[in-house]
Amino acid sequence: MRTTVGIIGAGPAGLLLARLLHRAGIDAVVLESRDRSYVEHRQRAGILEQGTVDVLRAAGAGERMDREGLRHDGIELRFDRTRHRVDFPARTGGRSVTVYAQTEVCKDLIALQLKEGGPLLFEAEALAVEGAGGERPRVRFRREGREDVLECDYVVGCDGFRGVARAAVPAAVARVSERTYPYAWLGILADVPPSHDELVYARHDRGFALLSMRSSSVSRLYLQVPAGTRAEEWTDDEIWSELDRRLETDDGWRLRRGPITQKSVTPMRSFVHEPMRHGRLFLAGDAAHIVPPTGAKGLNLAVGDVVTFARALIHERETGSPDLLDAYSATCLRRVWQAERFSYDMTTLLHPAPDATPFDAGIQRARLARIASSRAAQTDLAEAYTGFPLG
Amino acid sequence: MRTTVGIIGAGPAGLLLARLLHRAGIDAVVLESRDRSYVEHRQRAGILEQGTVDVLRAAGAGERMDREGLRHDGIELRFDRTRHRVDFPARTGGRSVTVYAQTEVCKDLIALQLKEGGPLLFEAEALAVEGAGGERPRVRFRREGREDVLECDYVVGCDGFRGVARAAVPAAVARVSERTYPYAWLGILADVPPSHDELVYARHDRGFALLSMRSSSVSRLYLQVPAGTRAEEWTDDEIWSELDRRLETDDGWRLRRGPITQKSVTPMRSFVHEPMRHGRLFLAGDAAHIVPPTGAKGLNLAVGDVVTFARALIHERETGSPDLLDAYSATCLRRVWQAERFSYDMTTLLHPAPDATPFDAGIQRARLARIASSRAAQTDLAEAYTGFPLG
Repeated sequence: MRTTVGIIGAGPAGLLLARLLHRAGIDAVVLESRDRSYVEHRQRAGILEQGTVDVLRAAGAGERMDREGLRHDGIELRFDRTRHRVDFPARTGGRSVTVYAQTEVCKDLIALQLKEGGPLLFEAEALAVEGAGGERPRVRFRREGREDVLECDYVVGCDGFRGVARAAVPAAVARVSERTYPYAWLGILADVPPSHDELVYARHDRGFALLSMRSSSVSRLYLQVPAGTRAEEWTDDEIWSELDRRLETDDGWRLRRGPITQKSVTPMRSFVHEPMRHGRLFLAGDAAHIVPPTGAKGLNLAVGDVVTFARALIHERETGSPDLLDAYSATCLRRVWQAERFSYDMTTLLHPAPDATPFDAGIQRARLARIASSRAAQTDLAEAYTGFPLG
Repeated sequence: MRTTVGIIGAGPAGLLLARLLHRAGIDAVVLESRDRSYVEHRQRAGILEQGTVDVLRAAGAGERMDREGLRHDGIELRFDRTRHRVDFPARTGGRSVTVYAQTEVCKDLIALQLKEGGPLLFEAEALAVEGAGGERPRVRFRREGREDVLECDYVVGCDGFRGVARAAVPAAVARVSERTYPYAWLGILADVPPSHDELVYARHDRGFALLSMRSSSVSRLYLQVPAGTRAEEWTDDEIWSELDRRLETDDGWRLRRGPITQKSVTPMRSFVHEPMRHGRLFLAGDAAHIVPPTGAKGLNLAVGDVVTFARALIHERETGSPDLLDAYSATCLRRVWQAERFSYDMTTLLHPAPDATPFDAGIQRARLARIASSRAAQTDLAEAYTGFPLG
């Protein structure tokens, strides 16, 4: 098999990239190890930055998002039983975010790709990227029991943190920055309308809690739990009681309960692999970087990466200049590190660490008090939350 | 001996409080364990917030400060061999800071107190505060070889981190928050005009460096060194060479050298004692809280504490209401914790820790890049640097 751009992974990064290249008349093949149903049902992020919304819309993939997505003009910070709103448009000159689940983005992009785009091969498991340093990189993959090779001009690894693409960057040129956190998120989906119309980020001495939503009828809620917790350790009743405690306010606010349809644990990790390019292999999304979910940045970073790659390749096609392709890693990493910083700050702002000292707790409270009372601190947060500029 | 307010310690907190009370017609006695010359020559901070300048001026202690102090409208952040200015008035609606050494503030206040004020007893060593929980607290002290007792309506402990006042708060009601840092500052005074007209905060992989000044002819410079370093371990030449390396830029900037007249090591510590009041004993300044010097907040916090106490006592005299005295601890601690947060943030922004991971270094660089490029982040910093409001 032969193509211009070999894309490993049909998550939002790989699917959007295929879409962007298709619209630019550049052929591409997407290899995805799982089947379509699996890809369409894995629960992930759900907050789209303004820039992500704009990109999806411009790519002709925004129709259902515009119909079903929920525009959010702020978030609530909750601590010491009181509520503090951060108003995004007021602080950023009009920017906001949209709640629309990543899994829905994937469904929309898969449908478009299968209808209009190039090959999207499910259950095609990439085994290795070869010859990344040369002119003609190849992806070895297995499909229906036999091995095959995809020959490409460029390979883009959109195959996530556990994918094979990153392994093709020689260890001697790679620099890894990493942090693990001593806590995780126990997340639930519940068939009940959200108890608040915006996300609520709550800091409590017992741990962090997050009230979020997937739609106007489905709630998504999270509890900070110790790293290594298994979802089965928590009964539904225990989850609701703990959410009640951590979200409780002095003004009589009540959390609505409903049937829990899914329970899972998300580990918390920060990870950056530099550079994000080696020869003709480009890494995008979780293949190159991971953020803890507190800042809602994972999906949005992946979108930024593939937009940067598509622009660079189109530029090379139109002008013959590889400048933007050469700048890919540095361009992406500026934005990546800002998102890493923000995600780390939001995480450490809101999660009491198991080994936190009284000084650490005092600093956390002082940070929250500062955000609650300062226009500058709210602006800094709102700009980061609604998204750093592409490029 | 008998007085209304017994003040332990003739640092800037104790001296300013004596001045404020004298101007309000409330009698006070200051006990200071050291002699006058020692107090007038210990090197400490040198950055006065706008609010501190206003207070000194209003107290009639601003004459020489207004003549000799240097108004600073910004600081420079230096990293990756480039320079980034934070403009204070532009970001805060006109606020600035004044460079005027703490030791000069003390000289001015001592002269005023001896000329116009109540008793200021040098070499009078406070031994203990007794009866703080009752109506008539006492300070036991030793002077000229014999013990004496100062009977008071109120005792204010301005006797610093190692003073005796804090010990009079029963351990059962005290909460201590503390952090030590694995580095210290090696500071020098040099007889050479400052090489830049504003303070330069430099982050370098080899460690932090700070270019500051005491006057237009005296430079004050600091180097991050490992905790436990002794000043004698560094020769003058080694200090200048290391400052050169850490402050070097790509634009040909040069550090001027001159005779080093003093060398000392400042440990880095964060410390908060809560509450700041027990009965009729009030703690102020370093007796209650310590910040690392990076944010230049120590002296300014002390000023905030004694202004809060003086206002509260005057209010009680005028209205009979103890409300403000009762609120003293909570009022001060709001500001204290903001200064603790800011000092911690400035410190960890600029000092590479000896055990820093690549991720920590990446976050430091991302924070600096954010401040260099964001009006909101600069505003947040400038507001904190020029000072949080009193009360």
